[in-house]
Amino acid sequence: MAKKAKTAITPTRTEDYTEWYQQVVRASDLAERSPVRGCMVIRPWGYALWENIVRELDDMFKATGVKNAYFPLFIPLSFLEKEAEHVEGFAKECAVVTHHRLEKGPEGGLVPAGSLNEPLVVRPTSETIIGDSFSKWVSSYRDLPLLINQWANVVRWEMRTRIFLRTSEFLWQEGHTVHATDKDAIERTRLMLDVYAKLAEEYLAIPVIKGTKTPSERFPGALDTLCIEAMMQDRKALQAGTSHFLGQNFAKASDIKFHSAEGTEEYAWTTSWGASTRLIGGLIMTHGDDDGIILPPRVASSHVVIMPIAKKPEDRSKVMEYTETLAKELREKYYHHRRIQVEIDDRDVGGRGWDWIKKGIPVRVEIGPRDIADNSVFIGTRDKEYKDRSSLKRDQFVAEITNILDEIQDTLFQRALTFREKNTIIINDNKQFYEFFTPQNQDKPEIHGGFSLSPWCGSEECESKIKEDLSVTIRCIPFDNEAEKGNCICCGKPDSKQVIFAKAY
Amino acid sequence: MAKKAKTAITPTRTEDYTEWYQQVVRASDLAERSPVRGCMVIRPWGYALWENIVRELDDMFKATGVKNAYFPLFIPLSFLEKEAEHVEGFAKECAVVTHHRLEKGPEGGLVPAGSLNEPLVVRPTSETIIGDSFSKWVSSYRDLPLLINQWANVVRWEMRTRIFLRTSEFLWQEGHTVHATDKDAIERTRLMLDVYAKLAEEYLAIPVIKGTKTPSERFPGALDTLCIEAMMQDRKALQAGTSHFLGQNFAKASDIKFHSAEGTEEYAWTTSWGASTRLIGGLIMTHGDDDGIILPPRVASSHVVIMPIAKKPEDRSKVMEYTETLAKELREKYYHHRRIQVEIDDRDVGGRGWDWIKKGIPVRVEIGPRDIADNSVFIGTRDKEYKDRSSLKRDQFVAEITNILDEIQDTLFQRALTFREKNTIIINDNKQFYEFFTPQNQDKPEIHGGFSLSPWCGSEECESKIKEDLSVTIRCIPFDNEAEKGNCICCGKPDSKQVIFAKAY
Ligand SMILES: [Zn+2]
Ligand SMILES: [Zn+2]
Repeated sequence: MAKKAKTAITPTRTEDYTEWYQQVVRASDLAERSPVRGCMVIRPWGYALWENIVRELDDMFKATGVKNAYFPLFIPLSFLEKEAEHVEGFAKECAVVTHHRLEKGPEGGLVPAGSLNEPLVVRPTSETIIGDSFSKWVSSYRDLPLLINQWANVVRWEMRTRIFLRTSEFLWQEGHTVHATDKDAIERTRLMLDVYAKLAEEYLAIPVIKGTKTPSERFPGALDTLCIEAMMQDRKALQAGTSHFLGQNFAKASDIKFHSAEGTEEYAWTTSWGASTRLIGGLIMTHGDDDGIILPPRVASSHVVIMPIAKKPEDRSKVMEYTETLAKELREKYYHHRRIQVEIDDRDVGGRGWDWIKKGIPVRVEIGPRDIADNSVFIGTRDKEYKDRSSLKRDQFVAEITNILDEIQDTLFQRALTFREKNTIIINDNKQFYEFFTPQNQDKPEIHGGFSLSPWCGSEECESKIKEDLSVTIRCIPFDNEAEKGNCICCGKPDSKQVIFAKAY
Repeated sequence: MAKKAKTAITPTRTEDYTEWYQQVVRASDLAERSPVRGCMVIRPWGYALWENIVRELDDMFKATGVKNAYFPLFIPLSFLEKEAEHVEGFAKECAVVTHHRLEKGPEGGLVPAGSLNEPLVVRPTSETIIGDSFSKWVSSYRDLPLLINQWANVVRWEMRTRIFLRTSEFLWQEGHTVHATDKDAIERTRLMLDVYAKLAEEYLAIPVIKGTKTPSERFPGALDTLCIEAMMQDRKALQAGTSHFLGQNFAKASDIKFHSAEGTEEYAWTTSWGASTRLIGGLIMTHGDDDGIILPPRVASSHVVIMPIAKKPEDRSKVMEYTETLAKELREKYYHHRRIQVEIDDRDVGGRGWDWIKKGIPVRVEIGPRDIADNSVFIGTRDKEYKDRSSLKRDQFVAEITNILDEIQDTLFQRALTFREKNTIIINDNKQFYEFFTPQNQDKPEIHGGFSLSPWCGSEECESKIKEDLSVTIRCIPFDNEAEKGNCICCGKPDSKQVIFAKAY
C-alpha cells in the first residue's frame, strides 16, 4: 500500500467533501462565519477576488449598453404582494423590519420601539421596487430598451447556510431590462447568459453548460429561465448564473406601459439576470485541491508572492533589495486589464510557502542569496505539485510572467473540462440511471454520480418522481444538444428530449 | 428695472434655496424619491457620478495600504449595547428586523411571522460588528496596523429627509483601522482626513476647511473627530467627511487586544472614517446655478454631449458620420484615469441643449452642416453662460479637450473658493455676531450669514447658548488658525481661540 501523501487540508476531498469545503475556506482567509446567523464576513483576500469578478462583469455589462443605478434596500409589503408567483417564491425567507427605534427596556437592555404602519422587507431581489421606478421612467418606445443593473446586498433567510454557497446575506448584481417586443427581451435574456458564460469560462476557468430550466425550476414569475451549470469536484451541479425572460408578467404587476410608434399603448417586456458571491463557492469547488484553494490568475486576489530568504542577518539587506526591485518591475506590467499584483512575505516564520498555497496564489517566488548570485528566482505555481518547483533566470521570469499566468489559467480550465467530460455520461436505461445516482455505501456516501444526459418526456410527474427517489433534478435542457431523442428515463415515453440530470447545490 | 433673465430652474437660489435644491435635483436626473419612506433611487446619471467618486477614493485608500472587506448588514442588539455612548448615538434611528418570514394573514395580505429570538438592527455604522472580527484577527503587534475599508449601504431612520443630504438609507464607505500606539492611530486619523480633503478639492472642486469637532459634535464614543467643512451657496456649512480617533474605547468594548513586542498584552487603538452619497448633495449645492447642476469634469457622469443638427433629411447621414467620428476620437483619449465619455443626443426635439445644461454635463457640442463645411464644432461649456458659445476648429477641439475640461474644473473650484472667502468674516463682537446670523426678514428669511471666525472659550455652555439662540454651531476648530485669540463671543472670557461658527446641514 502506497504511503498516503500529506496534504495541507484535512480531510481530503474524497474523505469528506463537505468538511473539506469548510476547511479549505477557513485555511484560505477568504471569508468566515459572522456572529449574525447565516451571514458571512468577506475578508480582504476574498473581497479582492470579488472586486476582480465585479470589474470584469461590470465592464462586460457596460459594453452591451447597460447602466448602473441603485434602488432602496427596503421593499414595502404591498409591493411583494403584486406578483402572485413571486411572493410565493420569496415570502418564506424574508427579513422583516417592523420597528424604527430602540428604547431602554424594563430590564435595562434595548427593545424595539416605533412600530411601522407597514412592515418593510429587506430585498430578497428587487423586481418589484425597480418595476415601480420603471413604470415612471418608461412612457414611449423611444425610452426603450431600458437597460439597468444594480450591485447590491440581498437577504434570503436561509435555514442551512454554507459560506459563499448559501448565506442569509450575499452580494450580487441584478440586471433589469425593459423592451418593446418579446423578441428583443428574449435576445437580451440570451445575451446576458452569454456574458455569464464568458465570465465563468474565460475568467473563473469554470466550464459551463448553457441551457433552459424546466418550468418547476424557473424563477418565480418568469416565462423562461436560462442558466449556466457547472460541475463541482463532488460531481454535483452548481448554477453559476441565471437570466430570466419575464414576459409581460412584471410589466403588468408594476404597470410598465409605453406608447408604441403606432400610437397604441402596450405593456412592455422585461428581463432580469443575476450572479452573486456564490460564484466564489463554485470557483473553490471547481479548482481547489487537498492543499487548499487555487485562484485562476485572471481574477486572483493577487498574482505573485515573493518570499525572501535570509538566514544570515548580513544577507538580509541584499535579499530585500533584490525582492523589492523584482516586485517593482512586476508591478509595472499588466495582466488582463490590471497591473500585476505582488505580495512580499518577509515574515521570519516556517511554512510561509504553505500559507500561500492554502490561499491559492498563482505564483510563488523564493529568493535566497544563492538565487541572487545566480541572477535567478525559484518558482512554484499553484497548478503544480509543491515539489515541482524550478529555477528561472530573473529576467526571463519578468519577461514571461504573463505567459506563466496564462498557462496556469489554461491548465485550470482544461483540468475542469476534462473532469466534467469524464463524469458526464449518456444514460438511456432506467436501472443504470438509478445505479449512477445511488452511492455504494449508504452510511457514508462516497463521491458518486455526475451529469447524466438522459431523455425526459417533459412531464412534471417524471421530474418530481426522480427528485423524490434520488434527490436528482433536471439542471437544464441544454442548448447544444446533438444527442438523439429517446425514451423518457422515468416513464419510457418515446421521442423524449435529452436533458442534464444531476444532484445540485 | 432690468428684465429678469429667464432661468431653467424655478425658483432661483435667491428666491427659495430649499425648493431650488429639490427642483435642481429633479431636473438633473441624478436621483428621485422612492415609495419607501426617506429612501432614494439613484438614477444612472447620479450613480455614474457616485461610481467616479468611489473609484477615486478607493484608489487613494489603497495607496495608503487600506484593503477592502465586507461585514454583515445586520447587527445583533447585544452588540449595539457594548459601547455606551455609541448606543445612545444610534438607538433612536434604527431599522429593526424582528421576523424572518411572511405568512398569509387573516385578511389575505402578508403578515410578519417567524419571530427572532434576538432582534437585529440594520447597520447604522459597523464599528461593533467589525470590532468583533478585529478581536479575532488581531493577536500580535505583527498584525498591526490593520487597515480595512467597507463600501456599503447603511440605514439611519431620519424623520426629515432630503435627497442625498439626509436619507434613511445611503451609500458610503467606512474605514476602520487598528494600531499598536495612540500616535499611529492619531496619524492615521489625520491621513484619512487629508484624503477626504484631496477628494473634495481636487475632484469635487469643493474648497474645504480642515479642523477638529468640539466634544459635543463628536462621533459617539470617539476621543476626537476631525472633519472637513464646506460652504454651500446659501452660506450654510456642510460636513463633507469625518475621521475619528476612537482611542481604546472600541477596542475595550470589542476586546481588541494584542501582544506587544515586549510581551505584554495591550488594548489596541482604533480609528474610523467615512464619506457618503451626501457628497453629491454638497457638490450640487456648491456648484449648481439657476439653470441646474454643474458637474466637475474629474468626476462628471459623462464629459461631452454631441448634438447633431440635421434639419434637412439629406444632411442627416453626413452629420451623423461626422458626429460618430468625432465621438470615437474623443473616446480614445484619457482625462484623469478614465476615458473621455461622450454622449450622442440625436433626438429630433427642441431644447436638447437645455436638457444637458440641467444635467450639468461639462461640454456641449453642436454640429450642423455649416460646422462640417467649416471643419469646426460649436462649443458651450457648463461653467459659462448659455449665450457664451463659440466655434472651434474640430482638430483643435480634439487636441484641447483635456485642457478645456481642466479649465472648467479650475473655474468651479476658484468660484467656490471666492464665494467662501467673501462670506467668511472675523467677528469679535457679540452684537455683530447676532446680527450676522439673524435674517433681516424673519417671515421669509433671505440667504444670510456665512462662516464667522470668532473666539470661543471652550465651554459647552456658550456653545449651546449660541445654538439655541441662533441655530448656529461650531463647525470646527480649524487646523490652520492664524487668527489672534480674543474674548469669547458669548461670555467674553479672554484668551479664547478662534473657531468656525455657521448654520449647518
Ligand atoms: Zn416521463
Ligand atoms: Zn464663553
